[in-house]
Amino acid sequence: MNPIFADLPTTVFEVMSALARETGAVNLGQGFPDDPGPADVRAKAAEAVVEGWNQYPPMMGLPELRRAVAAHYARWQGLDLDPESEVMVTSGATEALAGALMALIEPGDEVVLFEPMYDAYLPLVRRAGGVPRFVTLTPPHFRLTEEALAAAFSPRTKVVLLNNPLNPSATVLPEEDLELLAGFCQRYDAVALCDEVWEHVVFDGRRHRPLMAFPGMRERTVKIGSAGKIFSLTGWKVGFVMAPPHLMKGLAKAHQFLTFTTPPNLQAAVAYGLAKDDSYYEGMRADFARARDRFAGGLKDLGFSVLPSAGTYFLNLDIAPLGESDDVAFCERLVRQHGVAAIPVSAFYAHRPVRNVVRFCFAKRDDTLDRALERLRGLA
Amino acid sequence: MNPIFADLPTTVFEVMSALARETGAVNLGQGFPDDPGPADVRAKAAEAVVEGWNQYPPMMGLPELRRAVAAHYARWQGLDLDPESEVMVTSGATEALAGALMALIEPGDEVVLFEPMYDAYLPLVRRAGGVPRFVTLTPPHFRLTEEALAAAFSPRTKVVLLNNPLNPSATVLPEEDLELLAGFCQRYDAVALCDEVWEHVVFDGRRHRPLMAFPGMRERTVKIGSAGKIFSLTGWKVGFVMAPPHLMKGLAKAHQFLTFTTPPNLQAAVAYGLAKDDSYYEGMRADFARARDRFAGGLKDLGFSVLPSAGTYFLNLDIAPLGESDDVAFCERLVRQHGVAAIPVSAFYAHRPVRNVVRFCFAKRDDTLDRALERLRGLA
Ligand SMILES: CSCCC(=O)C(=O)O
Ligand SMILES: CSCCC(=O)C(=O)O
Repeated sequence: MNPIFADLPTTVFEVMSALARETGAVNLGQGFPDDPGPADVRAKAAEAVVEGWNQYPPMMGLPELRRAVAAHYARWQGLDLDPESEVMVTSGATEALAGALMALIEPGDEVVLFEPMYDAYLPLVRRAGGVPRFVTLTPPHFRLTEEALAAAFSPRTKVVLLNNPLNPSATVLPEEDLELLAGFCQRYDAVALCDEVWEHVVFDGRRHRPLMAFPGMRERTVKIGSAGKIFSLTGWKVGFVMAPPHLMKGLAKAHQFLTFTTPPNLQAAVAYGLAKDDSYYEGMRADFARARDRFAGGLKDLGFSVLPSAGTYFLNLDIAPLGESDDVAFCERLVRQHGVAAIPVSAFYAHRPVRNVVRFCFAKRDDTLDRALERLRGLA
Repeated sequence: MNPIFADLPTTVFEVMSALARETGAVNLGQGFPDDPGPADVRAKAAEAVVEGWNQYPPMMGLPELRRAVAAHYARWQGLDLDPESEVMVTSGATEALAGALMALIEPGDEVVLFEPMYDAYLPLVRRAGGVPRFVTLTPPHFRLTEEALAAAFSPRTKVVLLNNPLNPSATVLPEEDLELLAGFCQRYDAVALCDEVWEHVVFDGRRHRPLMAFPGMRERTVKIGSAGKIFSLTGWKVGFVMAPPHLMKGLAKAHQFLTFTTPPNLQAAVAYGLAKDDSYYEGMRADFARARDRFAGGLKDLGFSVLPSAGTYFLNLDIAPLGESDDVAFCERLVRQHGVAAIPVSAFYAHRPVRNVVRFCFAKRDDTLDRALERLRGLA
């Protein structure tokens, strides 16, 4: 067995969801909405599965979906993408990320990673033969600094893997941090691999700025998006990759060998959904923001110290004021004794973990959130 | 870019399907049925997408599907699999294969490959760091021999990657060849990675024998199956992996990092479908056998030299009697001048390719096959 994979524990998201099922806890751990997702998009998928094509679609994705993705990013982010050569459909953002790392990295190449990071990043980088260089971001602002980037980049830097908006911190990088990073990518001739799956889930009037749109970045950015996040259908596993043609060539091979294609019925429904007008996106954001405010307000009323959430399905508690210094032990107690599953943020660090932050998913119905609040009463 | 992926051409299946679309050729290249698949299974998926759970299912797959898979292989192949620890659902057999190679191989490990082989095998082995050792199988029987295996196995052999029934040869390995291979696996302490996606598509009263069922192989076999092939729904991309727990541990990590999960609606429909009684499987086989006979008979009547097809969606022509010695050039002419897309079998070899064999997919409606035959008239 290859130890890079075999020696790892099961992902904390899965462990916590299983624990929540076992104990009957309110599951605010793994990031998924408990809303069923848009009925019309689901009806479209049902129609396609009954009346449409269920054999292999084209390897790069249904042409109508690739066109819809290009139009989507033109409208929302001003990107000018050629659907034929610069857009590919993948079996979720995870596959897109795995494939990109397999395609871009040669053994010994350095990859800049930002901690906290999604738990798949590091093993994928290592299995691709990459050498990780960490930049540690710290609460409450999780900002980039010139010094930290200068320490991480080197002439061997091949890829920078950025998640923005950032899970689990629920922060959105300010313009000046992105500019700083864009400068480093160009100075060191690095490819920016941008996991922007949370791009639509930003609050308080924010608008996501893709790194690809910054001067000089168009030719060196691989951007990853997710229909599961756009439509609150996380199980569908329909993702997109956008990249200039010279990079897409290798990414397409990786996709060919990792999954080859993605179910055409779900692709057809996503193509339909992406044509929704602005009110859908505004409504989705407003609903999540309302849930965030309800949950954050409730936590504050209970006496908890809540960190700001600018985007994603998540918000974080600082547990230091509770006298807690071990987020894992805290989450264990929370799920087993108090019936609420959350995620210890130290799971997102490979070294020098932050130990005083715990992540909650607020993308839930009011009664789910209220039930969790009820159970947290008296803890702060 | 990593040259293992970037330098490869697009898969011949995709190229031929695109050419067929462009030229209006009858597409007997890429292996998919032109039947829509069982209506009740598709209806079940539609129901699940409208009324069921569309968020992340458990990472290893829906419990009901894992149980259905275990029951399926108990009934059909006498395998005794624990659904909890020995069965995992993947986003198609391709993901299962990619994940298994990533999980099992460490750089420098040798992997025994049999040519002809599916075109994803070699780049995946190379990208995982494996060193390929080829065994060349030759028409018309594509048999294993003691000498060939002895030349390929070594103390560094870690994995043997076997496709049985074999695409593109349409052959099924006889019992004695499997026994021979099982002996080598045990002597060299190698894991058998068995791509058995065609296990149900075998004709003339044959019954597939999984390598896992041979004495001494239970603990060292990873078996891959495909719902797409069982239900003629190749676009669904629902696959299964069966392995003993000590191997599954690493395979599960690979799955976690490559796609994480597979759409729960399609999983639910496959679980439903697997419970079908024997008549479904017998009917499917009988339909494909009838199509094979119709097409093979028609080709023979036209004067072609047809190789036997014992399983899979495919049959092969020997083009040597036509005075042809370049299968690629022959297929080019076939699609562009005669309006029939087929696959040159040399595409399945990494070295010493067979040059006189061309593969046709007969998993088509009668009128599709008849149209192809009409177009092939006069060529032999
Ligand atoms: C793929 S399970 C994790 C889902 C998620 O994005 C999260 O909880 O952080
Ligand atoms: C994934 S496209 C190839 C389908 C197939 O199995 C074949 O045509 O050999």
